[in-house]
Amino acid sequence: MRKIDEQAVEDIALGAALLGTGGGGDPYIGKLMAKQAIAEYGPVTLLSPDEVPEDALVVPSAMMGAPTVLVEKLMNGEELIRSFKGLENYLGKKIYATFPIEAGGVNSMIPFVVAARMGIPVIDADGMGRAFPELQMLTFHLAGLNATPMVLSDEKGNDIIFNTINNYFTENAARSAVVLMGGSATLSIYPMTGKDVKEHGVTGIVSFAEKIGKGIKESRKNGQNPIEVLQQLTGGFELFRGKVVDVLRKTEGGFNRGEAVIEGVESYKDETLVVEFQNENLIARKGGKILATTPDLICMVNLETCIPFTTEALKYGQRVLVLGIPCDPKFRTPKGIETVGPRYFKYDVDYVPIEELVKGDGK
Amino acid sequence: MRKIDEQAVEDIALGAALLGTGGGGDPYIGKLMAKQAIAEYGPVTLLSPDEVPEDALVVPSAMMGAPTVLVEKLMNGEELIRSFKGLENYLGKKIYATFPIEAGGVNSMIPFVVAARMGIPVIDADGMGRAFPELQMLTFHLAGLNATPMVLSDEKGNDIIFNTINNYFTENAARSAVVLMGGSATLSIYPMTGKDVKEHGVTGIVSFAEKIGKGIKESRKNGQNPIEVLQQLTGGFELFRGKVVDVLRKTEGGFNRGEAVIEGVESYKDETLVVEFQNENLIARKGGKILATTPDLICMVNLETCIPFTTEALKYGQRVLVLGIPCDPKFRTPKGIETVGPRYFKYDVDYVPIEELVKGDGK
Repeated sequence: MRKIDEQAVEDIALGAALLGTGGGGDPYIGKLMAKQAIAEYGPVTLLSPDEVPEDALVVPSAMMGAPTVLVEKLMNGEELIRSFKGLENYLGKKIYATFPIEAGGVNSMIPFVVAARMGIPVIDADGMGRAFPELQMLTFHLAGLNATPMVLSDEKGNDIIFNTINNYFTENAARSAVVLMGGSATLSIYPMTGKDVKEHGVTGIVSFAEKIGKGIKESRKNGQNPIEVLQQLTGGFELFRGKVVDVLRKTEGGFNRGEAVIEGVESYKDETLVVEFQNENLIARKGGKILATTPDLICMVNLETCIPFTTEALKYGQRVLVLGIPCDPKFRTPKGIETVGPRYFKYDVDYVPIEELVKGDGK
Repeated sequence: MRKIDEQAVEDIALGAALLGTGGGGDPYIGKLMAKQAIAEYGPVTLLSPDEVPEDALVVPSAMMGAPTVLVEKLMNGEELIRSFKGLENYLGKKIYATFPIEAGGVNSMIPFVVAARMGIPVIDADGMGRAFPELQMLTFHLAGLNATPMVLSDEKGNDIIFNTINNYFTENAARSAVVLMGGSATLSIYPMTGKDVKEHGVTGIVSFAEKIGKGIKESRKNGQNPIEVLQQLTGGFELFRGKVVDVLRKTEGGFNRGEAVIEGVESYKDETLVVEFQNENLIARKGGKILATTPDLICMVNLETCIPFTTEALKYGQRVLVLGIPCDPKFRTPKGIETVGPRYFKYDVDYVPIEELVKGDGK
């Protein structure tokens, strides 16, 4: 148990933006919201999953929709509280603690807003250890947990409670509703016990994000090479260095879809990397060769500072380092690959762990 | 207060199918469901709105979706009870009575299924006095009532509770959900007080449907002219007699849309009537001349027996009588016409009451 203050929030947001693999939203907006809530209501307690009573009711809080929309349609915070209290009312039970569903600039921060305002702790765990675009793409789904009862809310005052038998149906129905809500909404989802989060979650992920964020930031001060620091901290593989020469993107069905074309620099000169994304970076190809695919993490950071880029912030001319990081082992089961592997996203490619893909190609 | 038995249900279903103006679903299926529930649980009490305590919680029950789907995807009845009890649980209050939202083969019957199984009365009122395709097209909406909290359920076990600030948003979000639910779903909607239904509902509509149904049926036994009986009972105007020569229809976004082309017979020989529908018949044109538009009722019945046709049952070769019946005066206000008039349905036509349209043209 320890307290998360505004400084820690900065580090978590930075590290989580890396783990968001291009998705998960703008860390600046997420950070602002969390820092404001902590400034107003005080620091938030972070609990290790072991510190949560096994039978406690715990519920992730998050936003759903295209993160590009969030830049223009800010949350007022009330809808988050409505999602949260709406679920408490529906279940007729107080919620003991909240936590993120995924790592990312916005969804790593939202639980701190809820926790600060509700006076409850955040648990050091999530359901992805990275970001993914759909509600059933969680380790909790793989473990057989139901995403519902779940409450979806918008800033205008609309609430929708789902109580369903199928997480894919919930994803589809909630996605349609989010589009009608203007492209983004808040939610409370996957109500579960302390035991569930400990057994089925990606534990320690909030601290891990903080460590990464702190590492990136301090390497600059200490004159270390931030790329080396990042690789050491994450166990990630360098996939490419280059300059963004083209970004195609469209907002479609509540998602940001597109691809980034990157021309090699330094030892990658005359090579081209294409990274395709759907909110998150999903597949990296160099010529005909696949360098990495979902569920492993494909992260783009500024080549000098190692500050992560979200897909919506990618622009012509940016110099990027592309890193591949092994995903949580929970996703590397047959059900995991079926749920979040390349074929689910319509790529005609089998999943091969990044450690094997980079053999003889890593630099 | 009186009891509705299986025989009364037959008459109500027949009359309501006429008032459904082509929509509202197959009266055979609705009737079967209601008769089965009454056979199992006993007759249902019908209350006049005056007999309902002014502060009682009363809630309409209904199905939503394309009635054509219901023919193949039967309800099992459990989803109706889930919609109903789900709303009781959400509101934390027992529901005193139920009633229809609209007149039609299915939605006039569903409240009897719920009432029989829950052991509560049905109120002799609805929110349309006819059928309409969307959730905000009710006299209760015109009076400013909120359609939510509302519970939408399917036969597979999915429930969605809406608690929104805007009936149009609710319509859109629920419509998307119904499509994902397979094209039809059940709901409890517009929770209100006994005072609301008395002041803002179309009162006496269940008894009115029963009287029409009984009139059609008995005219055959008594050797009366059923067309004359029907016109006398409804105050309707004869618009056309003819033979269906073409029916265009498609199921689109959860609606049955299309048009029927009718070639005149008897005194209408060499004339052609086109009736356009979206679940319900919305506009009738003879050559360039508009004979009737929504919200007035455009009803097609068998030319010999006066048994009503639903739009999905229309077929080449059927001989039909087309009747126009004035709608409830609550729809003839500016807000009423804006909500359910021809322009809402994308017809570039002003609403003119049918009494004026038929002047000099009625037969």
